[in-house]
Amino acid sequence: MSAPTERTALNRIPEKGVYDREVIDAILDEALFCHLGFISEGSPVVIPTIHARHGDVVYIHGSAGSRMLKHLRRGFEACLTVTILDGLVLARSVFEHSMNYRSVMVLGPAREVTDHDEKMVALERVSDHVAPGRWRDARGPAPSELDKTRVIAMSLSEASAKVSTGPPEDLEDDYDLDCWAGVIPLELVPGGLVPDPRLRPGIPAPSDLLAYADPAGPFRSKTE
Amino acid sequence: MSAPTERTALNRIPEKGVYDREVIDAILDEALFCHLGFISEGSPVVIPTIHARHGDVVYIHGSAGSRMLKHLRRGFEACLTVTILDGLVLARSVFEHSMNYRSVMVLGPAREVTDHDEKMVALERVSDHVAPGRWRDARGPAPSELDKTRVIAMSLSEASAKVSTGPPEDLEDDYDLDCWAGVIPLELVPGGLVPDPRLRPGIPAPSDLLAYADPAGPFRSKTE
Repeated sequence: MSAPTERTALNRIPEKGVYDREVIDAILDEALFCHLGFISEGSPVVIPTIHARHGDVVYIHGSAGSRMLKHLRRGFEACLTVTILDGLVLARSVFEHSMNYRSVMVLGPAREVTDHDEKMVALERVSDHVAPGRWRDARGPAPSELDKTRVIAMSLSEASAKVSTGPPEDLEDDYDLDCWAGVIPLELVPGGLVPDPRLRPGIPAPSDLLAYADPAGPFRSKTE
Repeated sequence: MSAPTERTALNRIPEKGVYDREVIDAILDEALFCHLGFISEGSPVVIPTIHARHGDVVYIHGSAGSRMLKHLRRGFEACLTVTILDGLVLARSVFEHSMNYRSVMVLGPAREVTDHDEKMVALERVSDHVAPGRWRDARGPAPSELDKTRVIAMSLSEASAKVSTGPPEDLEDDYDLDCWAGVIPLELVPGGLVPDPRLRPGIPAPSDLLAYADPAGPFRSKTE
């Protein structure tokens, strides 16, 4: 349980705020990428990038552009947000339309990971977060590649989740309207394994990858 | 064509930067929600919220919490980012792993929409962006609901897109490795219409909504 800080306390819809680390961790682990916000020359910038959680730390792959790298030496204040969209909530009034989603916001200072061993652990986590077994199967980073790769770390000490589920909640009078209401569930579905056109013949896909990419399979098995 | 400004010029991977308004518009129109970044008490904050484009303006539904509303009276610098994840790119080296995605970043001042007519147009766009026909079918906003709803507008004058597609690009030597490589395509798929448990009998779903929510149908027909 992360205690809510003044900044993570959610004061608009308090019933949606969740500080339970199990909930926060599950959302971070399921989301395939994040949006990282930071301040560049006085203005906010939000970039999509890849992350992975390791215990109480979330690691962010710093491929996200030179804008962010400028700030790395001295550390910087950041906000990492992940959002999993679960459905569209269609109410009987325009005002009550909403979305079902699970979101996590991590606030706090971001630091560059420079220790070799921590950097390797972080890259392993990020790699296997994208798809299982890639750290095992793909060629590991050469020293020059490791130098070019930036890894950023944020603590989960200031983290909160928001979870919205269920059918629309209409004003009592509106339930009499002749308007269809309900939910359109949404799911991110993998489309199987599409081999690289340059894949050499006779290289089978590993079974864990096949299962992961199966449109009918448990895509998010890493969290289940 | 938006001319790149100093801030939107993408200097890390220039080949991915796109300033073509048709590309930018299509991504904004397809993405169901955005992440909005702004500065609150000196720190960056990134929140998920709903948006819709109307000509050269992107409207943002300001349900996103009191943190943002504090800034509204005087306007504020913001960064709106949308990202559509299209696939996981599994290379033969850990270093070359990446994602296929389409992303748009809109920078600039955000203003609150206070003009009644503009606000109604914005809400219509946002409503029908979530699902077709909702503005037509659902009860429109009552004056008190309209007062409670904040709408924010950003110009598309400082907007850029990044598009990444295709198979992995490995180092020439790595193509000899015994490592499976390719792409896992990803798609956000609707799961049909799930009626509200309190839906009165005899209210059919409109045909455009049925088609939109059909798992085998053209979910993103609004952009096609």
